[in-house]
Amino acid sequence: MTEIPASHRPLLEPPTVAAFTTIGPSGYPQTSAIWFLLDGDLVRTSVHTSRQRYRNVLANPRASLFLIDPANPQRTIEVRGDAVLEDDPGKEFLSRLLAHYGHTLETFGAPTDGRRTLTLKPTRVRVTG
Amino acid sequence: MTEIPASHRPLLEPPTVAAFTTIGPSGYPQTSAIWFLLDGDLVRTSVHTSRQRYRNVLANPRASLFLIDPANPQRTIEVRGDAVLEDDPGKEFLSRLLAHYGHTLETFGAPTDGRRTLTLKPTRVRVTG
Repeated sequence: MTEIPASHRPLLEPPTVAAFTTIGPSGYPQTSAIWFLLDGDLVRTSVHTSRQRYRNVLANPRASLFLIDPANPQRTIEVRGDAVLEDDPGKEFLSRLLAHYGHTLETFGAPTDGRRTLTLKPTRVRVTG
Repeated sequence: MTEIPASHRPLLEPPTVAAFTTIGPSGYPQTSAIWFLLDGDLVRTSVHTSRQRYRNVLANPRASLFLIDPANPQRTIEVRGDAVLEDDPGKEFLSRLLAHYGHTLETFGAPTDGRRTLTLKPTRVRVTG
């Protein structure tokens, strides 16, 4: 399945953090916590081009998002896919992402320049619980 | 750093679930939620030999554990390392693991035969927050 099932969409829709994994130059998985927006079946985030995960997906687009339901740890969703990088003219996507988390470009405590939009296009979606 | 810092040990010591990532045969990261025990700087879990993550680490030992502090999503720990597989004679390790989560071999709702112990030997530990 490459669609996010209705049963597990509520895990991904509210503002929350999820584990985002790329594969590093030495071949180890590298995971960090990200903010993201669900756009249909796509998972979209904003990444600063100075970050290792940005360099990782440039070299190898295979990535995944994973979330454990805080209310029930048996309930999980994993979205595996290919990361596609795009420019974000006028910071339009970044602004929408930040708004979802109650922030603006001004209140966001990190650099807003030098970022690109990363879209995870699912190749496999796995759920439990 | 290949040691788990005192600042973040409290995240890994109580019974909790964490995201465990291996690399699948198609090269995508594969993440699932696991129970584990911290043994010094080693992360140890029990894996059924029928599971994909078991086959993954047999073929490629590179793996990682990642946890987000439920009380503060800016606080995370990632342990990257190599997975070493061992037999578990008498289910000694499995029993200790289950006890940590309030279970016994009898109350555990999954097969207790056909399992091996997986030890993640850290090559890199990263923390935030």
